[in-house]
Amino acid sequence: MSSFNPVVEKLSPPPVPAVAAWGRAYRGTHGPLIDLSQAVPGYPAHPEMLRLLGETGSSTGFTGYGAIEGELSLRQAYAAHLSQVYAAELRAGNIHITSGCNQAFVCAAMTVAGAGDTVLMTEPFYFNHETTLAMMGVRTAFVPCQAQRGFLPDLAAIDAAITPQVRALALVSPNNPTGAIYPPDLLRAIFDLCRDKGIWLILDETYRDFMPEAGRAPHELFSMAGWEETLISLYSFSKSFCIPGHRLGAITAGAATVEQIAKIMDNLQICAPRAAQAAVAQALPLLADWRETNRQEIGRRAEALKTVMRSVNDWKLDAIGAYFAFVRHPFAGHSSVEVAEKLAKEAGIVCIPGVYFGEKQQDYLRFAFANADAPTIALLQERLKNFSLS
Amino acid sequence: MSSFNPVVEKLSPPPVPAVAAWGRAYRGTHGPLIDLSQAVPGYPAHPEMLRLLGETGSSTGFTGYGAIEGELSLRQAYAAHLSQVYAAELRAGNIHITSGCNQAFVCAAMTVAGAGDTVLMTEPFYFNHETTLAMMGVRTAFVPCQAQRGFLPDLAAIDAAITPQVRALALVSPNNPTGAIYPPDLLRAIFDLCRDKGIWLILDETYRDFMPEAGRAPHELFSMAGWEETLISLYSFSKSFCIPGHRLGAITAGAATVEQIAKIMDNLQICAPRAAQAAVAQALPLLADWRETNRQEIGRRAEALKTVMRSVNDWKLDAIGAYFAFVRHPFAGHSSVEVAEKLAKEAGIVCIPGVYFGEKQQDYLRFAFANADAPTIALLQERLKNFSLS
Repeated sequence: MSSFNPVVEKLSPPPVPAVAAWGRAYRGTHGPLIDLSQAVPGYPAHPEMLRLLGETGSSTGFTGYGAIEGELSLRQAYAAHLSQVYAAELRAGNIHITSGCNQAFVCAAMTVAGAGDTVLMTEPFYFNHETTLAMMGVRTAFVPCQAQRGFLPDLAAIDAAITPQVRALALVSPNNPTGAIYPPDLLRAIFDLCRDKGIWLILDETYRDFMPEAGRAPHELFSMAGWEETLISLYSFSKSFCIPGHRLGAITAGAATVEQIAKIMDNLQICAPRAAQAAVAQALPLLADWRETNRQEIGRRAEALKTVMRSVNDWKLDAIGAYFAFVRHPFAGHSSVEVAEKLAKEAGIVCIPGVYFGEKQQDYLRFAFANADAPTIALLQERLKNFSLS
Repeated sequence: MSSFNPVVEKLSPPPVPAVAAWGRAYRGTHGPLIDLSQAVPGYPAHPEMLRLLGETGSSTGFTGYGAIEGELSLRQAYAAHLSQVYAAELRAGNIHITSGCNQAFVCAAMTVAGAGDTVLMTEPFYFNHETTLAMMGVRTAFVPCQAQRGFLPDLAAIDAAITPQVRALALVSPNNPTGAIYPPDLLRAIFDLCRDKGIWLILDETYRDFMPEAGRAPHELFSMAGWEETLISLYSFSKSFCIPGHRLGAITAGAATVEQIAKIMDNLQICAPRAAQAAVAQALPLLADWRETNRQEIGRRAEALKTVMRSVNDWKLDAIGAYFAFVRHPFAGHSSVEVAEKLAKEAGIVCIPGVYFGEKQQDYLRFAFANADAPTIALLQERLKNFSLS
C-alpha cells in the first residue's frame, strides 16, 4: 500500500467527535445532557439572519465564483464594524474573508511560516492551531501560562522563547481554552516585542464579541503606526451570529499581507462561500443590538457558573472569561481524558479534557459554559457534587 | 517589517482575476464580451437547486457544526451516484466532502506528501495544482504531454519519472487545460504502474459529467481489487450544478484515507458549509435529467467550436474535450500572455494564456468553450479572423 504523509498520519484524530461519542453513551440518569464541548451558543440564529441566508442562498447572484478576498459588501461592512470596535481606521483592503476561523489561521500561518520554521504559541493552546502547524511541517514552541497568573503569558518568557527560527507568535484572546482576556497593555507590550524582534503577531479574536465589558476596545494595536507590518488578526462570524455551519471567518491585516493570503486562498478554495458572506454583510449592522443582548446573556451564564463552582468544594474555577472556563477537577493524578469520559457518560456533562490543550493540562477540563443557559448551568451543581471516579 | 513565507511570496498572483481585468478593458467594439476564461457554464442553476439552497440556507438544521467528513445525506447520495456511474460498489465511508475541488486537491496532496516530497504531474498542468504543491513546500516533477498524442501522457515517460522521492502522480481527466479525455485503458495502465511502484494516483475528475459519450464509465479503477490503497479521486459539484459560489467538492478514497483527510479538514475548516451539502444531496438524483441535457448542450458547443476553428486558417484546435479546448494561436514567438491580453482587450475574447499551464505552452490559449452557447461561439469566427497582434 502507498504510504501516508507521516506528519498527517501522526496527528491525533479530531477531538470533538471523540468527545461527542462519550456524550451519546450517556443514559440520561441525571437529566438532560449538558454539552459544554464544542463552542456553540445554545440559542438559535436570529430569524432575520436565517431569512437573509435563505434569500442569498436561493439567488443566482451568488452561484458564480466570487472575489478571492471576499465579497466587497462584507469586507466593507466588516471594516466599518472593526473601525468602530477598535476606534481605528480599517478599510476593505485590510480584510480577507475565509471559510471559518480555522481557515483564517491556516492562511495566516502559511503566509508567514513554512516547513521547518517555528511558530511560538502559549500553552495551554487551542488544539487546531497546534495540529495545523504540525500538518504543515511547521515547528512549534510554547510559552507556558500559569493559573496563578490568570493564564496570561509572561513577557520575559515570550522574549526568551523568540529564537532566530521563530517567525510568529500565535495568541488567542479571549483565550481558548482558558477564557483569559489579555489586557490591552499586555497585548501592546507583546506587539512591541514582536515588532522589535521582527516576528509576526497572529492574534485570534474569535471570542471578542463575548467580552464582559461593553464598549471597550479589546486592544489599541490597529492604531499603532505600522501595525500592518506585524499584526494579523483573526475572527469568526460563527459564534456571534450562531452560524458555524455556514463557515465564515475573517482576517484583518495589512494590504500587502492580504495579497499574500489571496494567493493561498485561491489554492485552498478559490473563495469563501458567497451566499453567507452576502447575508452577513447585511446582518452585521442590523443585528448589533441582538449581539449585545447575547453578550449580556453570556455574562449571566458566566455568573451562573461562578455560583455553581463556589458550591462544589473540590472543583476549582481556575479561569473564566469570554466563553470558556478552565476548571481544575479534583482527581489529581488521573488523566483528564478519564475524568472527561466518565463525566460525559455517567453525569451527562460533555467537556474537553485539558490534555487536548497541552500535555501538562491533565488536571483541567475546558467548559464551554456559554453553550448552556443559566438554569442548565445550575444543574451542574448536583452532578459535580455527586460525581466520583470510582 | 516581518517577512513572508518565501514559498508563498514567490507564487504568482492568481491568474483568473488578472485575466478578468483584461476583459473589463474591452470596449465592446466587436459586440459582447465572450468570457472563455474561468470554467463557468453560462446557463443558470436549476430553479429547484436554488429553491433547495434557499430552504437549507434558511433552516436552523444546518446552522450548527456538522460532521467533518460531510453530511451523511450527501455522502450516501454521492456514493450511490458514483456506484452507478462507475458500476462499482462505493459507500458513504469512501466519501469526504470538501469546500470545492481545489480544497479536495489540497487535502489529497497533503494526505500523501509533505514538504520535500515530490508529486508528479502532467504538463500542461492545472495551475492551482502546481501552486498548491509549491506553497506546501512539495516538489513537483512533470511528464510532458504532446499535441500529436492528443495531450495524453506516455506510460513509459511516467514510469521513467517515478523517482524514489515521488509520492503521488496527479492527473486531471477530462483534462484541464487541454480537454483531453484519458481512455479507460490508459488510466488502468497508469493505475497499475502507480500501484506497482507504491505511489498514489490522485485523479481529478471535475469535468467528468461533460464527457461526450453518455453512459460509459470514465474508468474501471473503482472495481480493481485494493483500489483504496492507490487511488484518490476528486470531484466538484460546482460545474455540474452551476453553483461554484457555494463551494462544494468531494473526495472518493479508501476509508483509511478518508480518516487521514478528516484530520486535515478539521484543521482547514472543520467541515464544508452544510446548507449546500444538504441541498445537493437532494438535487443529485432529482436533477439527473437536467444534467444530461446540459451534457448534450456542451457537446453542441464543442461542435460549434470545431466548426469555427475549421474556418480560421491560422488557428489550430490541437485538443478539445469535455469542457476545454487547447488552441494554438498563429503568433509563434509571441508570448501567450501578449496574445491573450490583446485578444481580451481588443477582440473581447477572454481566455487563459497557455504559459499559465507550463512554460512550454506559449503557443497555446485555453478556451473554456463550454461557458458560451453555440451562437456566441459562432461569433468567434469573425473576431479571430480579423485579429492581429500588430
